[in-house]
Amino acid sequence: VTDPDFAVLDAGRVERTGDPEVVYAEGKTPAQTAELLRRLAELHPSRAVLATRCDAATLAAVQAAVPAAVLDEVGRTAVLGPLPSPRGTVAVVVAGTSDLPVARECVTTVEVYGAAPDLVVDVGVAGIHRLLARRDRIERADAVVVIAGMDGALPGVVAGLVSVPVVAVPTSVGYGASFGGLAALLTMLNACAPGVSVVNIDNGYGGAVVAARIARQTTRARAAPS
Amino acid sequence: VTDPDFAVLDAGRVERTGDPEVVYAEGKTPAQTAELLRRLAELHPSRAVLATRCDAATLAAVQAAVPAAVLDEVGRTAVLGPLPSPRGTVAVVVAGTSDLPVARECVTTVEVYGAAPDLVVDVGVAGIHRLLARRDRIERADAVVVIAGMDGALPGVVAGLVSVPVVAVPTSVGYGASFGGLAALLTMLNACAPGVSVVNIDNGYGGAVVAARIARQTTRARAAPS
Amino acid sequence: VTDPDFAVLDAGRVERTGDPEVVYAEGKTPAQTAELLRRLAELHPSRAVLATRCDAATLAAVQAAVPAAVLDEVGRTAVLGPLPSPRGTVAVVVAGTSDLPVARECVTTVEVYGAAPDLVVDVGVAGIHRLLARRDRIERADAVVVIAGMDGALPGVVAGLVSVPVVAVPTSVGYGASFGGLAALLTMLNACAPGVSVVNIDNGYGGAVVAARIARQTTRARAAPS
Amino acid sequence: VTDPDFAVLDAGRVERTGDPEVVYAEGKTPAQTAELLRRLAELHPSRAVLATRCDAATLAAVQAAVPAAVLDEVGRTAVLGPLPSPRGTVAVVVAGTSDLPVARECVTTVEVYGAAPDLVVDVGVAGIHRLLARRDRIERADAVVVIAGMDGALPGVVAGLVSVPVVAVPTSVGYGASFGGLAALLTMLNACAPGVSVVNIDNGYGGAVVAARIARQTTRARAAPS
Amino acid sequence: VTDPDFAVLDAGRVERTGDPEVVYAEGKTPAQTAELLRRLAELHPSRAVLATRCDAATLAAVQAAVPAAVLDEVGRTAVLGPLPSPRGTVAVVVAGTSDLPVARECVTTVEVYGAAPDLVVDVGVAGIHRLLARRDRIERADAVVVIAGMDGALPGVVAGLVSVPVVAVPTSVGYGASFGGLAALLTMLNACAPGVSVVNIDNGYGGAVVAARIARQTTRARAAPS
Amino acid sequence: VTDPDFAVLDAGRVERTGDPEVVYAEGKTPAQTAELLRRLAELHPSRAVLATRCDAATLAAVQAAVPAAVLDEVGRTAVLGPLPSPRGTVAVVVAGTSDLPVARECVTTVEVYGAAPDLVVDVGVAGIHRLLARRDRIERADAVVVIAGMDGALPGVVAGLVSVPVVAVPTSVGYGASFGGLAALLTMLNACAPGVSVVNIDNGYGGAVVAARIARQTTRARAAPS
Amino acid sequence: VTDPDFAVLDAGRVERTGDPEVVYAEGKTPAQTAELLRRLAELHPSRAVLATRCDAATLAAVQAAVPAAVLDEVGRTAVLGPLPSPRGTVAVVVAGTSDLPVARECVTTVEVYGAAPDLVVDVGVAGIHRLLARRDRIERADAVVVIAGMDGALPGVVAGLVSVPVVAVPTSVGYGASFGGLAALLTMLNACAPGVSVVNIDNGYGGAVVAARIARQTTRARAAPS
Amino acid sequence: VTDPDFAVLDAGRVERTGDPEVVYAEGKTPAQTAELLRRLAELHPSRAVLATRCDAATLAAVQAAVPAAVLDEVGRTAVLGPLPSPRGTVAVVVAGTSDLPVARECVTTVEVYGAAPDLVVDVGVAGIHRLLARRDRIERADAVVVIAGMDGALPGVVAGLVSVPVVAVPTSVGYGASFGGLAALLTMLNACAPGVSVVNIDNGYGGAVVAARIARQTTRARAAPS
Repeated sequence: VTDPDFAVLDAGRVERTGDPEVVYAEGKTPAQTAELLRRLAELHPSRAVLATRCDAATLAAVQAAVPAAVLDEVGRTAVLGPLPSPRGTVAVVVAGTSDLPVARECVTTVEVYGAAPDLVVDVGVAGIHRLLARRDRIERADAVVVIAGMDGALPGVVAGLVSVPVVAVPTSVGYGASFGGLAALLTMLNACAPGVSVVNIDNGYGGAVVAARIARQTTRARAAPS
Repeated sequence: VTDPDFAVLDAGRVERTGDPEVVYAEGKTPAQTAELLRRLAELHPSRAVLATRCDAATLAAVQAAVPAAVLDEVGRTAVLGPLPSPRGTVAVVVAGTSDLPVARECVTTVEVYGAAPDLVVDVGVAGIHRLLARRDRIERADAVVVIAGMDGALPGVVAGLVSVPVVAVPTSVGYGASFGGLAALLTMLNACAPGVSVVNIDNGYGGAVVAARIARQTTRARAAPS
Repeated sequence: VTDPDFAVLDAGRVERTGDPEVVYAEGKTPAQTAELLRRLAELHPSRAVLATRCDAATLAAVQAAVPAAVLDEVGRTAVLGPLPSPRGTVAVVVAGTSDLPVARECVTTVEVYGAAPDLVVDVGVAGIHRLLARRDRIERADAVVVIAGMDGALPGVVAGLVSVPVVAVPTSVGYGASFGGLAALLTMLNACAPGVSVVNIDNGYGGAVVAARIARQTTRARAAPS
Repeated sequence: VTDPDFAVLDAGRVERTGDPEVVYAEGKTPAQTAELLRRLAELHPSRAVLATRCDAATLAAVQAAVPAAVLDEVGRTAVLGPLPSPRGTVAVVVAGTSDLPVARECVTTVEVYGAAPDLVVDVGVAGIHRLLARRDRIERADAVVVIAGMDGALPGVVAGLVSVPVVAVPTSVGYGASFGGLAALLTMLNACAPGVSVVNIDNGYGGAVVAARIARQTTRARAAPS
Repeated sequence: VTDPDFAVLDAGRVERTGDPEVVYAEGKTPAQTAELLRRLAELHPSRAVLATRCDAATLAAVQAAVPAAVLDEVGRTAVLGPLPSPRGTVAVVVAGTSDLPVARECVTTVEVYGAAPDLVVDVGVAGIHRLLARRDRIERADAVVVIAGMDGALPGVVAGLVSVPVVAVPTSVGYGASFGGLAALLTMLNACAPGVSVVNIDNGYGGAVVAARIARQTTRARAAPS
Repeated sequence: VTDPDFAVLDAGRVERTGDPEVVYAEGKTPAQTAELLRRLAELHPSRAVLATRCDAATLAAVQAAVPAAVLDEVGRTAVLGPLPSPRGTVAVVVAGTSDLPVARECVTTVEVYGAAPDLVVDVGVAGIHRLLARRDRIERADAVVVIAGMDGALPGVVAGLVSVPVVAVPTSVGYGASFGGLAALLTMLNACAPGVSVVNIDNGYGGAVVAARIARQTTRARAAPS
Repeated sequence: VTDPDFAVLDAGRVERTGDPEVVYAEGKTPAQTAELLRRLAELHPSRAVLATRCDAATLAAVQAAVPAAVLDEVGRTAVLGPLPSPRGTVAVVVAGTSDLPVARECVTTVEVYGAAPDLVVDVGVAGIHRLLARRDRIERADAVVVIAGMDGALPGVVAGLVSVPVVAVPTSVGYGASFGGLAALLTMLNACAPGVSVVNIDNGYGGAVVAARIARQTTRARAAPS
Repeated sequence: VTDPDFAVLDAGRVERTGDPEVVYAEGKTPAQTAELLRRLAELHPSRAVLATRCDAATLAAVQAAVPAAVLDEVGRTAVLGPLPSPRGTVAVVVAGTSDLPVARECVTTVEVYGAAPDLVVDVGVAGIHRLLARRDRIERADAVVVIAGMDGALPGVVAGLVSVPVVAVPTSVGYGASFGGLAALLTMLNACAPGVSVVNIDNGYGGAVVAARIARQTTRARAAPS
């Protein structure tokens, strides 16, 4: 396995950080993404590799080059190789149906990074009873990702209800003065409930990595009595 | 009563809009504010007039010029003349202690504009049970003003719980990326619970005027069976 | 009637807030929006339900799924079920022809939320006599929505002329430094005429909800002598 | 007359542009400003020179160095030498008392640049009748400067009423979301009434220069029948 | 001639401001623009009327409805009716070829508003000798419009060379951090050469109106000895 | 123990989230902060309570009211009551000396929230060897907080070197275009190394809470073989 | 050779600055760009001329008009005429594959401006060992251009490793809160490693010009002993 | 010589980059800065070390601790130890007197970094003849730093006149919409004259480092015939 001429493979990442290899497809040609995914899978046959931000043409190129890849058109991901056994659980809490593409990217990434996702949908604060009814289920996870666009208040409300670390993902869904997710981002950064940290707008992938890292190293501790 | 040489009095406002006369003290000298307040009280002896945004020097000048004025150092207001009988109730819901100066300006303005304020404090979303316990009290008002800085999520949560119109006032309280209240402002504009409208940052006065106008014209309707 | 697998229906909203059910179509597939609208209408057969932000494909899907729906291509709305008898009047004041899509969304929402809209068009401040000639008509409403993009000054001028609460809706119409409606939004937040509150850019729906809530609870009060 | 060692005098400006010499005091020491003003007055004994943005220490230094200078503490200006005979009139229209410091700088600059100022105060759009009552007086000027902070709508309303060129000066007066005058600036740039151009925030000097240049070259034209 | 049902014609504008009637096509359907232009031309048979911001479909609709209209695809304008005799000259100074669409809109507007345009192209500051060689020609105009995107410095340089009022029009041409013209706008507002005022980004129309108003009232004055 | 009249104590937080009680002193009077701290310590005698953002006057008031409190003038904190036994370690990595106040607030908060801090200072990326030399020490922690202002790149570099979750805290230290920490905030949100999440500017407290929650639930897992 | 009617050729630039002639294609028609390139090549037969920002239609028009031109579809450039002999070397360091279009524009420009490019790809800070392994190669250049979008930290890390002047080019590649390259731009401006200067977002051309100017005048100095 | 307990000395920087040691005083106590400067001078007795951003208290502490230090109150710098022999010349071009503090920091830094500064003052574009008269002097330098606040156009004009690399330093001097130097920064980034790169606002130090690095490696090349 040699480097393609447009990229330097970082083959030591698994050893260094415990994380899988990932291809960020935006700005790459479909052929480049498919080729990178194929080579990385060759380097890591026992561990799934992931491509994110794949548009339709890229997904088609991946399917043609490596038919065994598992594709998700909504979440725009491709996965190639066996998923690791999950260690720990990540609750993925989603405010509304419009935030689902980011949530799908998050769920897939949690799996590839070695944790078990639990998807909780449509629990915006405008009908707060829906969230309260799911509090215990969220509390049982080892880490929580909260994904919201128009409902930037949600991570703060969740963090006030549970003791688990909360990672907030703002989305670019919303009316004019959402400014492409900036409003949700600022809301989440200013949430006065402690225990919330934030990743970039629409970055379901990034939120999943943080949460999966927490869940993987936590699982045994929470299983034991404390 | 003649115009001072630095301002044109708008003596017809009461007739045109039903609202009292108000002096905005920022950018005026203490002497100008005191003199304007005195002349407006002469023009409207049967109805209280109001000065807002009074710093300490201005409050002292007002007290010297018109000793009958009622001063509030926290809310930075001065009131001169008899308050009108209240028609309707305005719930003033405040997220935290740090937002109190804006809340005080709001409460005083509600009174001068002819409605009865009901102050509800320290009900941030990080401990949502505190708000839920006060839901019925808020629902009984004719209009609600929600004042919050770090807790910009609060108006959306309130609007999902009650049927009364909600006016949101963002405050400039908060950490770095609150950007002087901008984060709270954007959060409130993007609240996905319907029935929320917003006024300017720290503008407790403006929120009170909107709510008092609603409450004054509502009171009889809500007293009657519907 | 059961929940679709992509959303949790909030069947208690009518009881809690007095407002109808609404589907925000942006970010949903045409099929999802049509299905949600159909199920909500089944849950609430005696009260119209509303879908907003419907693009052409969504309107077509709605028409195919529920032919009884009333569609508006300009305002991008779909309504299904009988409108409630209107209580109170909302004046919808529009600066220019270019702001009409937002105004149409507002007018339809006012009707579905149970008030009677009165549309006043083309009254920008560059020809202020057109507005002055319609002052009395606006004053007769129970609430006013003012919709403007390049003419962000309009809500402040209207609020100085009438005693009714004014809800301002900035639109994204305008030249370069309108910044997608930000300029109009800031203008309206800074209007020095009191009694103005603001909703999000292009949010004709949100402005209508606030105004309709005010009008519904006001109507009887203004009919009686005061 | 030689150059001081911290500045290169631009002695040819009068010939090139017809404008007087001006010292911008901000960022200079009081002694530097006083010295520059003295030397420029020596170079131009028959024509007044101007210093702007003078703080209290600078005005004191000027008074000590050149006792004949005329100082304005509100407008923060110093003038030295005989004013030119005015050619043409500039109406300086001011929204509120809080905008007076900028207005004073503007009025003084108009005089030094060779036109006659006509100051019109306290005509904000919240009480539009005050402006309408002064329309004919404004129309008689050769150019109009409109100065406003919270009332950014004013230049657009004025430009819709008169045929004279309107220069708008936003001020930094206002509540939180005025963002130091940015809101007024954007409002004025987006005014849909044609015939409005804008200068920098709080730049009463710049507005005056534009208007005075117009007035000086206009006066004879408007006196003659057209 | 009666009002179409989507707009209130402002037939008195000519009398009030001396300016022609104009239709802003953005946000209107092609049919609406064509119809408005036709009716305004009927109301003002002796004076040209103008439509701006016409896309290709709108220009086609105008040509079909009123074949006598003069169209400009680059400047996106349509003119109908006889141009007035020009009074005074407006120099339209353009930094680069990429700014030409805005410049064309400006030139046409100057003509319709009753002044004579003089177009000066490709004089960016990176090759300052090109501008210096045209200084006298620009000085002969009664007003100057300077149009630039990447070359936001140009208005300040021009204003330092001539005595004529300068109106600056920033354009949205440029690399990433031009932010759609914002960089040029700020550059022009901060130009330290006095005598510059600014209109909105890409607003060649607005710059022309300001300059034409100045030129129309100036022409006689500059012709006479002073 | 009863509620003071300016705040509603949230006595159930420990049970709900496992976190201690905290007073945010900004916007409160020194007396209010001291009184709140005293009452909270009475409610939780076996667990330390914390006050953050204490200015000099507040620290003096705390010392007078509760002499047993431990004060930190650099980090602006006060702690009252016994610290819990630490579970897990948090590495607090600081770019430069100027970021120390935020780092001190972070270290104290980690202790009060029940983890052991390990402070690593002066490891900015301009001399990357200093960081590389401390890699193994950082890797041994259960969570990492990286604090940086001018050196916003640091969290991304750290996250590429270790497998532990990284929480980034931007500080407001820096030259002009740092915009009060905004530049560092954006840098950190855009760090392309996965596993980084971000809290608000200068929010050493918030970063500590997130990291301590992770460390507390992790400690046993990492002690066991994996 | 005469000027086309839409542009003033600046034939003296080579003499004045030593740089070649360049056409910026954005905002020009394909025909205009092709024609300008052809005429400039006629004026400068012994030195290559360059067109940047050429879309597909423009490249086609250039190929048709001047078949000898060398085109680059990725970098969107066209070059016509013989390249100068290179003097000095410019290292072009690129963070990731997604930044390659900007890097290609940079490499071509370096050649046309008379230096030798050395392209170093895929050395983002998330895997810092890749960069450290290439340190000596970068140090050997006379100037360095660092191109990065999501990896805005890279220029600061590079500048801390080498003694050569570093020019940073932010790109618009990235997630939501990259704000079209603004985040990378601010990161680079705030890099605390000295010796970094920055050009506009995506401006590979501008970075190349700065670096080539440095390299051309440096080459002899570095060859000699110092 | 050992590390103080608040900082890790980076003793290898001279070898790695050829640059001297520098202390950034902002955010450090006066005693910390003085102590760091003293220790760094001990480490590098043959080469001057520098402290920047020293307020009055810091300069006093430095003078007390190391009386041999050379202080500059305007530029806020302290230098300790012998200056290196200059290699190459840096022209420091300053728009106006108000920009002098940044220029002084720049001049001192150029000297400490081993080049000879040549200060050219008061050459703003509003009087372009002053700059043209100094063109040849600027061309003779090996690198140019252009420092300007209100006159952000200056670097672009200079870069069009000379063949030397130009580093632009925006300053925070200016009226309201300069936004603390942001306007100048954007202007400089968008300058369409090639060969300009930019450093942070008010960062005279950073501009000097870039320019000195260029000048040091250039000097021999330009002395020889080319």
